[in-house]
Amino acid sequence: MARPIVTLTTDFGTRDNYVAAMKAVMLKTNPELNIIDITNEIRRHDIMEACFIIANTYHYFPNWTIHVVVVDPTVGSNRRAIVASINSHHFIAPDNGVLSGLFQDPEDIAVYEIDAEHYYLRPLSSTFHGRDIFAPVAAWLAKGVEIENFGEKIDDYVDLQLPVPELVEEGKLQAEIIHVDSFGNLITNVTRAQFEQMLDESENHAFELAAEGLLINDLKRIYAECDKDAPAALFGSTSQLEIAARQRSASEILGFEKGAKLTIKFS
Amino acid sequence: MARPIVTLTTDFGTRDNYVAAMKAVMLKTNPELNIIDITNEIRRHDIMEACFIIANTYHYFPNWTIHVVVVDPTVGSNRRAIVASINSHHFIAPDNGVLSGLFQDPEDIAVYEIDAEHYYLRPLSSTFHGRDIFAPVAAWLAKGVEIENFGEKIDDYVDLQLPVPELVEEGKLQAEIIHVDSFGNLITNVTRAQFEQMLDESENHAFELAAEGLLINDLKRIYAECDKDAPAALFGSTSQLEIAARQRSASEILGFEKGAKLTIKFS
Amino acid sequence: MARPIVTLTTDFGTRDNYVAAMKAVMLKTNPELNIIDITNEIRRHDIMEACFIIANTYHYFPNWTIHVVVVDPTVGSNRRAIVASINSHHFIAPDNGVLSGLFQDPEDIAVYEIDAEHYYLRPLSSTFHGRDIFAPVAAWLAKGVEIENFGEKIDDYVDLQLPVPELVEEGKLQAEIIHVDSFGNLITNVTRAQFEQMLDESENHAFELAAEGLLINDLKRIYAECDKDAPAALFGSTSQLEIAARQRSASEILGFEKGAKLTIKFS
Repeated sequence: MARPIVTLTTDFGTRDNYVAAMKAVMLKTNPELNIIDITNEIRRHDIMEACFIIANTYHYFPNWTIHVVVVDPTVGSNRRAIVASINSHHFIAPDNGVLSGLFQDPEDIAVYEIDAEHYYLRPLSSTFHGRDIFAPVAAWLAKGVEIENFGEKIDDYVDLQLPVPELVEEGKLQAEIIHVDSFGNLITNVTRAQFEQMLDESENHAFELAAEGLLINDLKRIYAECDKDAPAALFGSTSQLEIAARQRSASEILGFEKGAKLTIKFS
Repeated sequence: MARPIVTLTTDFGTRDNYVAAMKAVMLKTNPELNIIDITNEIRRHDIMEACFIIANTYHYFPNWTIHVVVVDPTVGSNRRAIVASINSHHFIAPDNGVLSGLFQDPEDIAVYEIDAEHYYLRPLSSTFHGRDIFAPVAAWLAKGVEIENFGEKIDDYVDLQLPVPELVEEGKLQAEIIHVDSFGNLITNVTRAQFEQMLDESENHAFELAAEGLLINDLKRIYAECDKDAPAALFGSTSQLEIAARQRSASEILGFEKGAKLTIKFS
Repeated sequence: MARPIVTLTTDFGTRDNYVAAMKAVMLKTNPELNIIDITNEIRRHDIMEACFIIANTYHYFPNWTIHVVVVDPTVGSNRRAIVASINSHHFIAPDNGVLSGLFQDPEDIAVYEIDAEHYYLRPLSSTFHGRDIFAPVAAWLAKGVEIENFGEKIDDYVDLQLPVPELVEEGKLQAEIIHVDSFGNLITNVTRAQFEQMLDESENHAFELAAEGLLINDLKRIYAECDKDAPAALFGSTSQLEIAARQRSASEILGFEKGAKLTIKFS
């Protein structure tokens, strides 16, 4: 039988022993685990970045993979810990909104507060629940402990509002850069489906994407078609509209960061 | 049966193929290994940092995990290679003091010089014993080769003096920052046990922690209780006294590096 | 039976989910895989660096390891995807020359264009073939699908000219720095065999290595014998001539980058 997979998404970095301590605790309880790093380089304390990463990654894994997501600036406070079953995957995280990207179809969501302390590592620290709570819960869940055993089902989990494109006038969207990847590609919150529908419905099937110092009115298909100096638009691997330059960082060229606004006018 | 675990703690970084070559050599000898990186980003040539990391991490792994620690600035010289059994774990390292943090209870320590050359990779390089000696020895040890087979038992292994807090006068400790983590938290060499005992024994159960530009006289419990701009003190996940700021780097705010001194006066 | 090993060599970095998405897709098809990162920090779009890394690493792994190499600046264009059997290992890569270092002995090389689309992930993106083509092909190959099933055998794969030392006059080589490792060691394209043969054949068995601001006429054996400030020459772990300084970056001291030229005169 295949070994159970546990993934890690954290802001712990890879210089310290924090990630290794979590893996160690998991393997001590369940030596059969196959632990895969999604990334441990979420920008420090950036809950929304972790949100983006896990929502765009989990579904490529086999069903019932256990995803541990730890970006936890209020660790040790009264924020709750949760374990959830969503779309045939398991998630373990602080209840601070880091899973917000996943709470779309209420029918497929069951969220439990973690409070069964006998599964915790002892002594329990107040500063590192990744090691002391999330890791052992993941290992026991992978061993077959039923999700109900970790605590009570809750409905009032934190569900943050993710930025969606706004229809500011007929045929005109205000959109936003929601992720800058490490190539410097600027990923917007406009999906291919939404873009194509608005383009279809427009009179001339034309569009104009505008932001400070940027004006784009055609789509490229691949990065190699983009210009080296003038960033262009295309649909990237997340099927979201992306602004990119050929073999260069569009973020550096334009000086755009996450949160930068842009408008798309279809005409 | 669970696969044998080998951990890696090195200063090789992750850009080159050095870590991968070690993993390759191990898997060629023993394809069943589960190789876990503790970190490969020890500060270059910093034996004391590797010392801190391995001593604070190994015990979270299952017993008899094999820990390979390679920070080895004098590789190829007459420094010895060692394999050790300590507190029911195995360690493989250059004999340069990198395991010093583990040599506390002589009853649980057995150290062997590695000189059984038939276990080495051929040809043996003079610059990369991680790949040519430590990796194959780890793989053979995990396969069941007895530790005595790698060489003679020795007692004169290098055991460096680690910095411990000094009682400079009645009720006053001089302590030291022994690790700066990648969040910028400043970890001191004062343990919770020592701190609490001195606080208990003091007249008013009060303390004053002082360093250049820093004066602290209370303890926080969690990071979220710390101020963003004025670093505070708390016990971190190693159970050692730590100086930290909320969601910021205390190291940057204070300009403190590893080795910075501080005093704690109990009154 | 040991789990099949797949290695990854990419320029995707570790901050994003690109590497994790590839691993996820592979594990979904074949949960038994043991996926090992060679490195995901190839300099962005640097085909020659990936070439150097994979050629110097693959042979340490067990035979028939599957090596996935993705540095792919023209992804989505008409560049082909290939799967190859070379020297009893498997390789999967874009056909852009990234495997050039391996194409030395035509007898041991069989290269196939990948075009069996039923193995691809659906929907197929035009920007991320690592996830959509290379990962699933690796997983199916590891599951026992015959290499011929992925497409037609080809002979016109891209084979880039790698820089080799040039005999500019009798007894005088012009060589080149072909890799700068993360320690700052400068690795040249002169092999130990070539160097030793020319030294043997020279009259006085002496040599003079010269480059801008650098003059070396002896060989060190290990890094610890090098000077801290004046870089020296030695044979490193690849058996190639290397310029290094003791516990410092020779690249920084000399200001040399990849591509820097040097001459070696034997006399």
